Amino acid sequence: MNIAEQVLEGSRLALSRVLTYIENDQPEGREALKALFPHTGKAHIVGVTGAPGTGKSSLVNRLAYYYRHPPEGEPKRVAVVAVDPSSPFTGGAILGDRIRMRDLAGDPGVFIRSMASRGALGGLARTTAGLVQALDAAGFDIVFIETVGAGQAEVDVARLAHTTLVVEAPGLGDDVQAIKAGILEIADILVVNKADRPGADATVRALTEMLKMAHPTQETIMHHGQRMVIEVGARREDAPLWVPPVVRTVAVENEGIDDLAQAIARHRAHLQETGEWQIRDRVRLQSELENLLRDTLMQRWRATVSADVYRATLEQVFSRRLAPSDAVAQLLDGAPAA
Amino acid sequence: MNIAEQVLEGSRLALSRVLTYIENDQPEGREALKALFPHTGKAHIVGVTGAPGTGKSSLVNRLAYYYRHPPEGEPKRVAVVAVDPSSPFTGGAILGDRIRMRDLAGDPGVFIRSMASRGALGGLARTTAGLVQALDAAGFDIVFIETVGAGQAEVDVARLAHTTLVVEAPGLGDDVQAIKAGILEIADILVVNKADRPGADATVRALTEMLKMAHPTQETIMHHGQRMVIEVGARREDAPLWVPPVVRTVAVENEGIDDLAQAIARHRAHLQETGEWQIRDRVRLQSELENLLRDTLMQRWRATVSADVYRATLEQVFSRRLAPSDAVAQLLDGAPAA
Repeated sequence: MNIAEQVLEGSRLALSRVLTYIENDQPEGREALKALFPHTGKAHIVGVTGAPGTGKSSLVNRLAYYYRHPPEGEPKRVAVVAVDPSSPFTGGAILGDRIRMRDLAGDPGVFIRSMASRGALGGLARTTAGLVQALDAAGFDIVFIETVGAGQAEVDVARLAHTTLVVEAPGLGDDVQAIKAGILEIADILVVNKADRPGADATVRALTEMLKMAHPTQETIMHHGQRMVIEVGARREDAPLWVPPVVRTVAVENEGIDDLAQAIARHRAHLQETGEWQIRDRVRLQSELENLLRDTLMQRWRATVSADVYRATLEQVFSRRLAPSDAVAQLLDGAPAA
Repeated sequence: MNIAEQVLEGSRLALSRVLTYIENDQPEGREALKALFPHTGKAHIVGVTGAPGTGKSSLVNRLAYYYRHPPEGEPKRVAVVAVDPSSPFTGGAILGDRIRMRDLAGDPGVFIRSMASRGALGGLARTTAGLVQALDAAGFDIVFIETVGAGQAEVDVARLAHTTLVVEAPGLGDDVQAIKAGILEIADILVVNKADRPGADATVRALTEMLKMAHPTQETIMHHGQRMVIEVGARREDAPLWVPPVVRTVAVENEGIDDLAQAIARHRAHLQETGEWQIRDRVRLQSELENLLRDTLMQRWRATVSADVYRATLEQVFSRRLAPSDAVAQLLDGAPAA
């Protein structure tokens, strides 16, 4: 039985090994993903993002516990990919795991993986996508992707996720306002965590006001900032718009977690009813395919060019005698395979 | 006189227009950059990054003022590219400009440009690189790139910059520790701003400890996490290592700005003495060239493939019958130009 089959049979050890292969960009990881690919597409992928200090980890921890011990219905299997900008020498990721694992330790229906962002040798978004695919194929019903910070990385996460939670907390300093504006556009659900703190009402009001001003359009909801042309669409023309709800939580007190889980369930139902679920899935796969095409074309082309010619062209660029765009034209129109 | 010539002559209006062309990924921007390229490579590019609430904007503002009114020597021309995750509907970027401009308004030796990250149609890092090149050619001696957040975007900034400042502030919450770990690796200079606040000593100590543990190697300093093979190197084998200093500032009180400016000057001298300056320049240009090659190869290949074949292959991927890597093989080995 190969490792992909072991993952499909439910082996945690095999899954851990596959995730490590993917993180290290090893051929075994690519082979496993190929074998696992037909079994993907079932998990609900939920991105959780927001500024430092908002309590994202606690929130994900509580949500995972909720899904494992739901008030009604069957427990769901939950995986967490924590994309932490931590590095081996501080052990930050390991500490994070320990905190998170306290309530969930020993539960076979939970799988938590911390990834050091510097460990993503194949690029952060691509590596995260691979980890999520493996967890999806392994049968986890919900896969959380947790990221720290605000910026391009969060937009990339939103592209991977079906549902993106943006977490805020009252009183985090002057820059918070500016950040809210940027990530509001990728939010499907806004969470005001630490809602028992002073200023929570003001934060909820500010977010609600911003949402009113935003006038969400079909396009921003569909693409969340991505300009890619979708080759095969499926959205119903008359589908209702999703207006992101603002949910209050106090994760450490376990308050509001049920409301948040219900909002996540409502968003999932919305995605499926409107055809958005399928569109987000397709956008993600098309983007993955195109990045792979780009890399492969580059590799094949490099194999046709003499190292001396390439180096000489680079030297002309380094000395500012040749602009990069002219260098591209010169390399491609001189090279045999171009 | 074309617009690039006007920029070289010092026209602020022409510069503004070129920056807008670049930000909108318009052909006029690419043309201008081509003409400006021979005049680049002189500016000291300084990245300023750190978590929200650390006071980065105030710090950049004070540094800019310092360079315009130095205690000795000639004033330097200063440009600032602020990469803010703000969006048009909130006006966050505009507000940021107003605050920053107060001390610098009307000074022709200062140019400030805010960029909404969603406005970077050609990709955030590529657009920022273009803006920096235009400002470099326009004769600014120092170009600051200010980013909000922590994560991949900051690593990309570090690749653009000669010198990267990582800004911290005391008491920003639980997640700060984890973030420090990740961005420590890209830091050339660590700044503890708001150093008059309680906890500043502890923050300085923690950073100093982390630096001791990090044991910087030639490789991490050279590549800051980038795995690219440098085709043409220039670093002296026996060059001394740079150990990032920790500098305390209180930007709003204008305290420590001179120390910080001296640390920046020392780093610049270090880069030039060791050959690092040239290496960072080359890494940046090579990366730019290779991204451009990748995009051009993809465009040319797309032009050779029938839309129907492409769409049919995508459909097979969407339905999970064909893994993306198999789809790439099928497309390239079936396509005439591959």
